[in-house]
Amino acid sequence: MRCLARLSSKALLALCSLLALLALLLWARCPRRPAEGPERPASEAASPREPAGAPGPAALPGKSGPRYEEIDCVINEEQTVKGRREGGEVFLPFSWVEKYFQVYGRISQSEGTERFEFSHSYSKVYAQRAPYRPHGVFMSFEGYNVELRDRVKCISGVEGVPLSTQWGPQGYFYPIQIAQYGLSHYSKNLTEKPPHVEVYETGGDGNAGNAGNGGSGEWNVPKGCSLTTVWDKARLTGVKQFSCPENSEGVSLELNNGRDFIISFDLKLQGNGSVSVVLETTERSQPFTVHYESTTRLIALRDRDIFYGIGARSAWSTLTRDLLTDLRKGVGLSNTKAVKQTKILPKRVLRLVARGRGFLDNVTVSGTAHMAAFFAASRWLLRNQDERGGWPIMVTRKLGEGFKSLDPGWYSAMAQGQAMSTLVRAYQLTKEPAYLNAALRATAPFRLPAERRGVRAVFMERHEWYEEYPTTPSSFVLNGFMYALIGLYDLKETAGERLGEEARALYERGMASLKAMLPLFDTGSGSVYDLRHVMLGTAPNLARWDYHTTHINQLQLLASVDDAPLFKEFVKRWKSYLRGGRAKHN
Amino acid sequence: MRCLARLSSKALLALCSLLALLALLLWARCPRRPAEGPERPASEAASPREPAGAPGPAALPGKSGPRYEEIDCVINEEQTVKGRREGGEVFLPFSWVEKYFQVYGRISQSEGTERFEFSHSYSKVYAQRAPYRPHGVFMSFEGYNVELRDRVKCISGVEGVPLSTQWGPQGYFYPIQIAQYGLSHYSKNLTEKPPHVEVYETGGDGNAGNAGNGGSGEWNVPKGCSLTTVWDKARLTGVKQFSCPENSEGVSLELNNGRDFIISFDLKLQGNGSVSVVLETTERSQPFTVHYESTTRLIALRDRDIFYGIGARSAWSTLTRDLLTDLRKGVGLSNTKAVKQTKILPKRVLRLVARGRGFLDNVTVSGTAHMAAFFAASRWLLRNQDERGGWPIMVTRKLGEGFKSLDPGWYSAMAQGQAMSTLVRAYQLTKEPAYLNAALRATAPFRLPAERRGVRAVFMERHEWYEEYPTTPSSFVLNGFMYALIGLYDLKETAGERLGEEARALYERGMASLKAMLPLFDTGSGSVYDLRHVMLGTAPNLARWDYHTTHINQLQLLASVDDAPLFKEFVKRWKSYLRGGRAKHN
Repeated sequence: MRCLARLSSKALLALCSLLALLALLLWARCPRRPAEGPERPASEAASPREPAGAPGPAALPGKSGPRYEEIDCVINEEQTVKGRREGGEVFLPFSWVEKYFQVYGRISQSEGTERFEFSHSYSKVYAQRAPYRPHGVFMSFEGYNVELRDRVKCISGVEGVPLSTQWGPQGYFYPIQIAQYGLSHYSKNLTEKPPHVEVYETGGDGNAGNAGNGGSGEWNVPKGCSLTTVWDKARLTGVKQFSCPENSEGVSLELNNGRDFIISFDLKLQGNGSVSVVLETTERSQPFTVHYESTTRLIALRDRDIFYGIGARSAWSTLTRDLLTDLRKGVGLSNTKAVKQTKILPKRVLRLVARGRGFLDNVTVSGTAHMAAFFAASRWLLRNQDERGGWPIMVTRKLGEGFKSLDPGWYSAMAQGQAMSTLVRAYQLTKEPAYLNAALRATAPFRLPAERRGVRAVFMERHEWYEEYPTTPSSFVLNGFMYALIGLYDLKETAGERLGEEARALYERGMASLKAMLPLFDTGSGSVYDLRHVMLGTAPNLARWDYHTTHINQLQLLASVDDAPLFKEFVKRWKSYLRGGRAKHN
Repeated sequence: MRCLARLSSKALLALCSLLALLALLLWARCPRRPAEGPERPASEAASPREPAGAPGPAALPGKSGPRYEEIDCVINEEQTVKGRREGGEVFLPFSWVEKYFQVYGRISQSEGTERFEFSHSYSKVYAQRAPYRPHGVFMSFEGYNVELRDRVKCISGVEGVPLSTQWGPQGYFYPIQIAQYGLSHYSKNLTEKPPHVEVYETGGDGNAGNAGNGGSGEWNVPKGCSLTTVWDKARLTGVKQFSCPENSEGVSLELNNGRDFIISFDLKLQGNGSVSVVLETTERSQPFTVHYESTTRLIALRDRDIFYGIGARSAWSTLTRDLLTDLRKGVGLSNTKAVKQTKILPKRVLRLVARGRGFLDNVTVSGTAHMAAFFAASRWLLRNQDERGGWPIMVTRKLGEGFKSLDPGWYSAMAQGQAMSTLVRAYQLTKEPAYLNAALRATAPFRLPAERRGVRAVFMERHEWYEEYPTTPSSFVLNGFMYALIGLYDLKETAGERLGEEARALYERGMASLKAMLPLFDTGSGSVYDLRHVMLGTAPNLARWDYHTTHINQLQLLASVDDAPLFKEFVKRWKSYLRGGRAKHN
């Protein structure tokens, strides 16, 4: 106090002014709330029965400050969540809405301001570019990336097609997945630009290269190894012959490509040997090496070495590998059903290394090689069709409680249909009768019921159906049936009137069933995946949004080849469900 | 400044302290927000990708103040509503949620505090008190009030049963409504306490009255009128004989009952005459008078006089009238399908007035007279069954687009079934064979398909169904079918093995169909009213919540007489839908 007393009047006056200013500033910034009690303004308490639907005179946050309060929201007399109230309007927390109604939402930035984006569903329907044609793009498969799905263990080096782990971690060749792999690459080939192809080695007969050795790559031949250009009599072309011990450094071709990651080369081995590709990746430090060796092992990982068996390769064949896929499947290798997620990506293809004895030709790196993938799938289907015309699925499949298990060796109408769609496209491109014949033979399981290893079911002794899973009792999976119908359509359109007679009859009977039974799959706010509820008397098995979207994509396709108004109406209504639409109630 | 300058240091010091205190107080009350801008705190702008689902560190209203702001919520990229945001939580306005999801909510008072009550649906399932018995309470009909529905034009004075305007403003006797009127009163009679009955006149043979004239009422006989007690030889009882010109004041009996509103009396007219009841109502001023006159007109309103024709009544009969219903139907009389809403209620039954010549006996006023209503319905069913065993419905019924109209004279399996349920109860009470015989004859339309005026339909040539509306194509209305099954059950249980053979066979075939087809009505979040979507290829006709609840009530009933697990499972699942439950998706 003494110290204060000594202050002059002037200083005190200045202090007073400062404090007054401070008080004023604080007053201005402070939101005004009635003094009676900040928890519930008296003005609102006075009109407690305001209807909830009518927005009240609540002040918005901002200049004059919010007049809002917390309110208990009792949900179906079972649960209480904390909402907010402004006059007659009540606000419900999205964290509750999201779970209760199974909807989606997030805060996002848009043009510098934040907004909340609410979505009824998470998947989008593809806009159909043109009416469907049997040799055109397959549905919306140009957007599919089969090989990167976590249920694809890897692309087999021996077979050139994906190996599935969907229903068994041991892995098995799943004809549906293989056909979809082929069809997606076929479709991408039609919709994407042709890739850039960098040629590194043509065995001396190209003009693209430096150093006059046919191609842009430079070979490195260490001591104890040899590399020569020789004339291949069968192929009528010069090729590179290499020879070096398997445990040596190997002969290597400099690639140094940071742009593309599909490697392709022609290969013929004399005894054991391997071709390895060294990759710089997004993971610094040491590079990764992918080894393609003359074994039959599927895939292995050891430190930074990934191994794929490619078989003996004692005759000439082309090996085309997506190094991104091969790297990621190797790094993510697991004994479970799903490949582990990894962030690792290839950054640069450094070089190719050959070991053992053999011949190499036409070494290229490119951005895509869709037709290679498509024909790998098509040829796999040719090689693996059995004497019954089917592609037996060698895994046990239990569709769900109430269904008997399907024992390994079962056929799927979806596999048969998707194989047809693949094979007729291969036929159209090559005109090789083997492809068309295989597609025609694929109709055989459609003649037989499930108990005779066929795929035919009949709904209420009336409507013929083709089963994705020929279960007992029947399951009537919708999307698999429609894929089967699309395959039959492709076949009947390709094979002509006489050869395609059976496919046409099956298609027409199936389409009649689809038109009659489609309403059974409509819940008024979505669709059901199958009719197990009818067969087993259980709850309906609702289709999650991506299956609902598949249904719509398939119906869009069918609407473009069949002008029944039903299809267009279903597409319209089922699309509306994605945005919260509902059928009317009575 | 001069003035200030003159202030002593002490005063300035005090002022300083005060201002400092004020500033401090303001600081404490003011919510702290970063200075960068109150509209969007920098700390939140720095992490714009906070997931919406995780509640953020938002301050609740109160001590530290809210950080609460408006945010645009974009709905399915189609529409924008204003939400609120607190940190990572977003709040959606219920006025939007309500419309979008078709749910219900209101602010209510509970123990002095307000809360928001959210309901997924608006109707409740009745708890079943005991297993169903064919002569017990009918389902949950003790809670029904058929006569007060706005689609009931009035209770006919001639027939004693309701007249429907549901599908035609002219009004028609609808056997379903009549049976439900009977069954609801039958059920109320079992569940409610016996009513208080006030006796006003027993024609001299009672002991309850004042003035020794049998009953508690006092007669007023104006000049030109006469009233005498005479012996009725047929009834072996004393009755009141009245005689006065039709346009006179009439003889009147003082009732003055402010408690109950069901009037009942035995009446026999000699020529034209009327009995009127004068009512004090919630509408002050003049009383209303309800006239029951010896005409066949249905109902009329003139100022405060309401007229019901009761027919000639030249032989003894009992007239029992619910004055509340009669008053409201009169006041609300309209030429449209719906009776007008009115708030008017009777407050006091003032007196009964008789005009013309005739006899009166047993004048009472009581709270209920359920058995009178039940037998009015039962006798109407007896009188109006036709030679085909059916109750033809004399109105055109168009179920919806895509269906042919049903021309007047169609039968309904629901009407047949509900009539059976009514008639077997009348039989059980009276043991009069006519009731049982009528119920047995009512099975005849179940043998015939719609095109032969029957009610039988077959789903996919496999499952027999009994049609509430025997449309072309078939419509498979679920609730009507289950009412038909309940009627067949009641009949087979009552009629015994031999007589009930056909009813049992129909019941068993129908129950087999129900078990097979019930899943077709399950949408995974509610039920459908019928299968028109399957028959017409259209959108499913979702059942509104009160029909969904009816389905559940019916299934509960059937679960108590048939132990198939299916029924219990459906009841459980369909109940869960009322609280927002949904079937699983795949």
